[in-house]
Amino acid sequence: MKSLLIICDGMGDRLTDGRTPLEAAKTPNMDLLAERGITGIMDTVRTGIRPGSDTAHLSIFGYNPFELYTGRGPFEAAGAGIELEKGDIACRCNFASMENGRITDRRAGREEEGLDQLAKEVEGITIKGVKLIFKRGQGHRAVLVIRGKNLSPHITSTDPEKIGVPPSKSMPIDGRKESRNTAEILNEFTKRAESILSDHIANKERIRNRKLPANVILCRGTGVNPYLKPFEERYGIKGACISATTLITGVCRSVGMDAIEVKGANGHTDSNIGAKAKAAITALKKYDFVFLHIKGTDEASHDGNFNAKREFIERIDSEVIAPILNEVKDTTVVLTADHSTPINIRQHSADPVPIAILGDVRTDPVKRFTERHCAKGDIGRICGINLMDRIMDLSNRAKLFGA
Amino acid sequence: MKSLLIICDGMGDRLTDGRTPLEAAKTPNMDLLAERGITGIMDTVRTGIRPGSDTAHLSIFGYNPFELYTGRGPFEAAGAGIELEKGDIACRCNFASMENGRITDRRAGREEEGLDQLAKEVEGITIKGVKLIFKRGQGHRAVLVIRGKNLSPHITSTDPEKIGVPPSKSMPIDGRKESRNTAEILNEFTKRAESILSDHIANKERIRNRKLPANVILCRGTGVNPYLKPFEERYGIKGACISATTLITGVCRSVGMDAIEVKGANGHTDSNIGAKAKAAITALKKYDFVFLHIKGTDEASHDGNFNAKREFIERIDSEVIAPILNEVKDTTVVLTADHSTPINIRQHSADPVPIAILGDVRTDPVKRFTERHCAKGDIGRICGINLMDRIMDLSNRAKLFGA
Repeated sequence: MKSLLIICDGMGDRLTDGRTPLEAAKTPNMDLLAERGITGIMDTVRTGIRPGSDTAHLSIFGYNPFELYTGRGPFEAAGAGIELEKGDIACRCNFASMENGRITDRRAGREEEGLDQLAKEVEGITIKGVKLIFKRGQGHRAVLVIRGKNLSPHITSTDPEKIGVPPSKSMPIDGRKESRNTAEILNEFTKRAESILSDHIANKERIRNRKLPANVILCRGTGVNPYLKPFEERYGIKGACISATTLITGVCRSVGMDAIEVKGANGHTDSNIGAKAKAAITALKKYDFVFLHIKGTDEASHDGNFNAKREFIERIDSEVIAPILNEVKDTTVVLTADHSTPINIRQHSADPVPIAILGDVRTDPVKRFTERHCAKGDIGRICGINLMDRIMDLSNRAKLFGA
Repeated sequence: MKSLLIICDGMGDRLTDGRTPLEAAKTPNMDLLAERGITGIMDTVRTGIRPGSDTAHLSIFGYNPFELYTGRGPFEAAGAGIELEKGDIACRCNFASMENGRITDRRAGREEEGLDQLAKEVEGITIKGVKLIFKRGQGHRAVLVIRGKNLSPHITSTDPEKIGVPPSKSMPIDGRKESRNTAEILNEFTKRAESILSDHIANKERIRNRKLPANVILCRGTGVNPYLKPFEERYGIKGACISATTLITGVCRSVGMDAIEVKGANGHTDSNIGAKAKAAITALKKYDFVFLHIKGTDEASHDGNFNAKREFIERIDSEVIAPILNEVKDTTVVLTADHSTPINIRQHSADPVPIAILGDVRTDPVKRFTERHCAKGDIGRICGINLMDRIMDLSNRAKLFGA
């Protein structure tokens, strides 16, 4: 039996006027999945922990984030298509604008003009014998990978996360010389990048076109690339992911899944999620395990927009869940979220997420897919780190432990 | 207060035509136990893990199998009555039949003739200064214990688990010299046993009686005997077990329980389970903790026989649970399973098992003992490793942690 795992980012919520977006939404197909399957609630990382999307996905894939996670950098880099080596230090970067030594815009006005050219100029710098790999991502985003010896991820960011101040000096967090060394390399990179970018013709062109210059690079989310035992070795199956979010694609690539790109999928509420569902259905012909990630729910939550979240959930119901229920057979189908992002606080919370599993399960009386209906389900309350084992068990692919 | 733990092996199930064997069975006594007690579901090892019977029982007795379990061998040996020492390497063996160097029957035709005599011939071999203890078990089964220095359980089996091939060569799984040494000893044992058995008069007699010769010994399930802190030290109580399954008796002996034998108890669906219940009731006069294991449910499950499982559950209800409810007083009584063995897959699964506890508990509204009724119970979903602590607590025998 094959498996399909659908995660709607940040879909869980708290109450706004007495109900959650899932409760307010018309979701006949999610409800059918709950009715035919078994339901419950899940702490994706651990009860009480506010998960990031990266730590939550790691945990749900069965990799303990408390042991393995140091920062988002390596996953952003993997998502941007950089083949990481074990021990690489990576950070998430922004092109930003600076005037008289102070940051005026942390995203260089979100203007992309000339960024490809500027990224190439910064690529391939060597500092203290260590190679720096730099690659542009979507929009103003980029990743920096520091590859070499005597490195450590335990350093502070150069991104001050506010304007009107200079870029921060990276500092070692612990007393190790590797951390001091890495902070020095990052500070030197920031200085050199600034001097390369400031006088660059592409920035002169941006200014001429009344755009902010992209004359500084700000880094954060520094982490070390951990060794993650590939999915195939771990579970004996080949997995594929469908995600339009670089960070999530990066987590999937880091555990050895193939990434399938879908045209028109963009991680926003206007994403072509119907095409993603279609791609997932097709991928199940080739792969034993398919992971489908949908981001828009989280975006609407961070915007604090209840109606946008409700409406996007209704789109997921009709454009994603309906075709999957119609077309996917002999497959364990799991619908859940990576964390809650309550509308009223506009940020991730530790509220457990609803989960429904369709397949060779004992069904329960729950007939709606919402946080509070699923809390009455026969799965009870489980932890994300155990989910993949259970999915493999339901697909008759789990190894027996003992005799 | 005393405690009685009843485990029906593999009793949990999934749905066949919309119901589980427990749901289909008439179980007025189990239901009464659920009604008067408190109910829930339990992952005996961990959510999502497919437990073996040995790892599940270890966990339920409070011993972490992830730390302590290396293979079934030591428990089979303890079950067969060998007094194990810490560090002993043990494996489960079969007498098998070979012709022209190829295995023709992995169980020597299940014919017992002459096996006592043959076992004695193989007993007491010394290889490389290491003593080999060999003991016949039930039917074609036997155990081998390797006792000495420089040994390791990290070796492959000599049992190829198929016919038409020679016995496998045992190989070290890791690079340690202890593993290489142990594999060499096992290979030499296999060779010597073959040469002793082949020309033995008992085998000539078997052949004359048109039976397959028992001319080779196949080993598997190699494990090292761990040190398990005795039950009495751990919980401050003396325990006894009633089990007709060598492996389970072995786990119980390994944690220091006394094994009580019951005539007519055989681990099959025609076992004299009424006599086992009687023995358990009697044992409670002498022991603070009695463990009653019933195997037939698992056997019917592995056979994929829904009706046999349902009928056997009904036998447990009337022949085991009824007298216990009638005669056992002032005792915490726990009814559960070690794992699910769904009829439709005929193998162990990770589905949680139902549990009901009768005693000084808060009762709940659940009135039937089934997987889905118990999922609604007030125990919620717990893990097997925590059960003994709870049983001790309910029997007012748990130590206070803190002040």
